[in-house]
Amino acid sequence: MKYSFVSHLYCPKCGKNYDTEDQNQLCKCGSPLLVAYYMEELKKVLRPEHLNERRPDLWRYHELLPVKREENVVSLGEGMSPIIKMDVVGKDMNIPNLYMKDEGLVPTGSFKARGAAVGVSKAKEVGVTELAMPTNGNAGAAWSLYCARAGISSTIVMPVDAPEVTKKECLAAGANLFLVDGLIGDAGKIVANAVKEYGMFDASTLKEPYRIEGKKTMGLEIAEQFHWEVPDVILYPTGGGVGLIGIYKALRELQELGWIDEMKMPRLVAVQSEGCAPIVKAWEEGQSYAEPWQDASTIAFGINVAKALGDFLILDAIRQTEGCAISVSEDSIMSELRTVSSFEGAFVCPEGAAAFAAARALREQNWIKENEKVVILNTGAGIKYPNTIQGDSNVLHPEEALVMDKDVSR
Amino acid sequence: MKYSFVSHLYCPKCGKNYDTEDQNQLCKCGSPLLVAYYMEELKKVLRPEHLNERRPDLWRYHELLPVKREENVVSLGEGMSPIIKMDVVGKDMNIPNLYMKDEGLVPTGSFKARGAAVGVSKAKEVGVTELAMPTNGNAGAAWSLYCARAGISSTIVMPVDAPEVTKKECLAAGANLFLVDGLIGDAGKIVANAVKEYGMFDASTLKEPYRIEGKKTMGLEIAEQFHWEVPDVILYPTGGGVGLIGIYKALRELQELGWIDEMKMPRLVAVQSEGCAPIVKAWEEGQSYAEPWQDASTIAFGINVAKALGDFLILDAIRQTEGCAISVSEDSIMSELRTVSSFEGAFVCPEGAAAFAAARALREQNWIKENEKVVILNTGAGIKYPNTIQGDSNVLHPEEALVMDKDVSR
Repeated sequence: MKYSFVSHLYCPKCGKNYDTEDQNQLCKCGSPLLVAYYMEELKKVLRPEHLNERRPDLWRYHELLPVKREENVVSLGEGMSPIIKMDVVGKDMNIPNLYMKDEGLVPTGSFKARGAAVGVSKAKEVGVTELAMPTNGNAGAAWSLYCARAGISSTIVMPVDAPEVTKKECLAAGANLFLVDGLIGDAGKIVANAVKEYGMFDASTLKEPYRIEGKKTMGLEIAEQFHWEVPDVILYPTGGGVGLIGIYKALRELQELGWIDEMKMPRLVAVQSEGCAPIVKAWEEGQSYAEPWQDASTIAFGINVAKALGDFLILDAIRQTEGCAISVSEDSIMSELRTVSSFEGAFVCPEGAAAFAAARALREQNWIKENEKVVILNTGAGIKYPNTIQGDSNVLHPEEALVMDKDVSR
Repeated sequence: MKYSFVSHLYCPKCGKNYDTEDQNQLCKCGSPLLVAYYMEELKKVLRPEHLNERRPDLWRYHELLPVKREENVVSLGEGMSPIIKMDVVGKDMNIPNLYMKDEGLVPTGSFKARGAAVGVSKAKEVGVTELAMPTNGNAGAAWSLYCARAGISSTIVMPVDAPEVTKKECLAAGANLFLVDGLIGDAGKIVANAVKEYGMFDASTLKEPYRIEGKKTMGLEIAEQFHWEVPDVILYPTGGGVGLIGIYKALRELQELGWIDEMKMPRLVAVQSEGCAPIVKAWEEGQSYAEPWQDASTIAFGINVAKALGDFLILDAIRQTEGCAISVSEDSIMSELRTVSSFEGAFVCPEGAAAFAAARALREQNWIKENEKVVILNTGAGIKYPNTIQGDSNVLHPEEALVMDKDVSR
């Protein structure tokens, strides 16, 4: 059987088609391209139970991924991250069926590894040898490490304020790392110029068509992990929004295959910070596109994206699923981060904490009903953001005794 | 069927037995206790294929774990970390069948989560409400977070030089964190006194019997991931050595079950740094116990253990499997870390890098033969050790163009 059932690329705006054997970027009309598969053919030969004996990584869905030859797969073991029940926080929020999919447990400690694994594998397959990309940190870390594994040279540009550890990852990978005294949009302009100047492949968000296929696997996994009965609500911290677009695409594909109920979609929620909420503003105003956000700033650095190239796809996914877009305060992000880590032992990233804050707010508004099954995407490991936790500790001399604040006894 | 086939605890030194319903620490003779299972009974009812439909976490082996009631399981989705082929580094070392099991992909970014998951679950089952432990950082981070999830109060003492992020994890968990201006042995003494003073459960390495059962699952997984044909050599960075002891115990249990060949054991290799190599010294001198190492110091902080309580068990496992103990230089650790991350895209921890350096040395000595199947345990994520990577990056203004060192072209 074929390893991949990929058919072609198509433009969701103008409808033009492209060949997946080429090095593709945006459509000539300026829109991101999406990947199509031979779904009718696949439907006849693949059943969910065929997955049972496959390894627990995202390549278990290889028929629904764009890499045609298995030898081009560049993998660090990414995917099939756990979904864990959040009983204590769920009780605190009055959402008894609250779950977290923990994307901290993928290579590089962030869900960006999914897009990188599939994007770099396909880049290798079509003969890319040098690529460049702007990033808020985690995507650059992931792409540079997967590029190292693939033998592809990478040039990464990120804001000087990006998380320190993501810079170290790029350097460990041997990438060409540049910092910019600005935002990711500024990094994007520098990359666009460099791509022209040096002829590198442009791996910017949605300027190459395959990252979304990697992110899509979050949706495939959620469906499989819930035994092909999708949850009621999925909350996703939204910057560039590729994960949300990908999850929506995955669920539509599973409906086409008949693996999930074609009448039920989870309501998809785009979560942003009040410091950078262009999608929320566009959703509230009923727009199809989002205007660039002025003076964007948030502690949840990964979602500090003033203008998303895929804004129209995000807004469409929210509307089609009867979901919503919601922004949360910086204070609520920080307090939710402490709540989740101390109540549940899950040291989440600030972006994940934002999604918890949004779940709490949506439950208070009764937009989320009490007995609904709710899944939060924690998009990365808290250990990549050590500065979110402040606190002092006593330093003892070796001969000294520790003194507990209060007497404790078993 | 029973969730656990645990039978009792026994002392490997004096043979005395203990009941797993009690809160056990060391044997009265001072030795660590080990867990026994009803293996003959289990052999009759469990087959490898029964595992196929279970979740990819370490609880898939629940019959061989000590937790009797599933509701006591405290899980963050730990286990079934990937094993990835290291073709480029393998070629560089002339070990074509080189693999890495990546323990960076478990909760808290370190293999310590395995011991914490099982240890905390069992502590919960036997009614522990407060525990204390000394740590070099990662174990304290893991135990404090799992304790938070279990509703158990934790008191953690670690050297002031421990990795910064591990302190943040303890604080995020809401643990009582104390630092000591000394080594882990000094932390151990402070904990021993605090345990007496406050009546807390002592969760120090091997002073509670269940952490080893969690670590054991690395051995179970390696066997299952290689389809029940064990590799020739397993290299393990050795501090307290619980992982090595656990892997050995796991493989013996699988032999008893008849799931792996009873004539073939992987040769187990204890890897240490030249700055702290008590096990290597004892092995070279043919001793059964190791003397405390003076002035212990290494960049691979997790293996900076001057005296391991389970030294005799480590040395026994090495001898029984015809393995060895080897120390590597600090320089080789740092250079191997860069090699692995830039050749393979795997940003390993310094302890994992030490094991790569050891594999290279053992191949050069022809102790590892060219076509042997070799598995390296990378015990944690490199992102927990950002200071291992140094380097400068250019900072650009938003209007500036990046300049590549050399002209690149597709």
